[in-house]
Amino acid sequence: MIIYFTAMRHKDELKQDAIIEAAIKLVNEIGFAASSVAKISKEANVSPATLYIYYKNKEDLLVSTYVNIKKKLSDAALKDFDSSLPIRDILERLWHNMFNYISLHREYFKFAEQFSNSPYNELVKKEEVEKYFEPMVRVLKKGIEQKIIKDVNHDILAAFIFYPIMSLSNSRLCKGFDNNEINIDTAFTLAWDAIKL
Amino acid sequence: MIIYFTAMRHKDELKQDAIIEAAIKLVNEIGFAASSVAKISKEANVSPATLYIYYKNKEDLLVSTYVNIKKKLSDAALKDFDSSLPIRDILERLWHNMFNYISLHREYFKFAEQFSNSPYNELVKKEEVEKYFEPMVRVLKKGIEQKIIKDVNHDILAAFIFYPIMSLSNSRLCKGFDNNEINIDTAFTLAWDAIKL
Repeated sequence: MIIYFTAMRHKDELKQDAIIEAAIKLVNEIGFAASSVAKISKEANVSPATLYIYYKNKEDLLVSTYVNIKKKLSDAALKDFDSSLPIRDILERLWHNMFNYISLHREYFKFAEQFSNSPYNELVKKEEVEKYFEPMVRVLKKGIEQKIIKDVNHDILAAFIFYPIMSLSNSRLCKGFDNNEINIDTAFTLAWDAIKL
Repeated sequence: MIIYFTAMRHKDELKQDAIIEAAIKLVNEIGFAASSVAKISKEANVSPATLYIYYKNKEDLLVSTYVNIKKKLSDAALKDFDSSLPIRDILERLWHNMFNYISLHREYFKFAEQFSNSPYNELVKKEEVEKYFEPMVRVLKKGIEQKIIKDVNHDILAAFIFYPIMSLSNSRLCKGFDNNEINIDTAFTLAWDAIKL
């Protein structure tokens, strides 16, 4: 019985993944407005009826896709997370993990950038996304308490410790930046100098 | 005769501006794929024939729109530019100028972000865009020579001294960041700490 449910669940997840990948691909190609449920389900090779099992409507699907990208990024970022390490080391590992993940999945972040510039962004349950990034926020807070990190608005810290990855990992924007570990580490030095007290 | 030509030129510029504003508005609303020359000219209130006087085709129009945004940003950034000031002061003024301009023209940068994530980006004559930002690049180079600024890849410097403005000025992304001069200045402190030696 357990095996049966596991298999069911697995099949469900595969379908949901296919739908999400299809939504990302279509939106990146033809934009939000033209990406209908009909087109997305066709691209995902499922029937619209199947799509509606998982998502209420187009808005729900797009918002879920965005939240799913954030969850994937958080999972990748938190690989080998060890809160007992010095704060700089924790952030350096997060930086490398995020850099590698974002570089390998530019299409997710092309979608996410468009999404966060759109009115759909208002429909996201912020608490859900914030939950995924809580361990990182906790590290920054700890750093502020220990007077290692500047006591400034969280958005300002994020703009220097996470956002530069978005531009540097985009080879279209940064043709002169070679994505190797040494350069990623040099860039981290600047991020750290920005936020450290 | 001179007056006649000036008036002609003025009329031309107004039309070109209207076409560019229409392209930005439409692309932001319905995406690149759906933004046809017919729709853009209708939105700009000119005939397609008029649009073709100024732009060879849709690609040319979209690329010109992007380059035009970069030129406007550069003009705004270089307001009161004074290369005789200390490097930190020059960059601080650039930072405030850019912050204010980008905050007031989010729609331009929504277009620009989408554009730079698209294959159209390959059609931009990089030298033309770089020309507009040359004075800023010269300041950074001078800072590196004087051992005031870190001697790292130019893309890395840009990711910390210019790119964080894009996220912080986006109120959709940074709801907790109030766009006032004090906060903009605090954010500059982090940008400066990132790039200074």
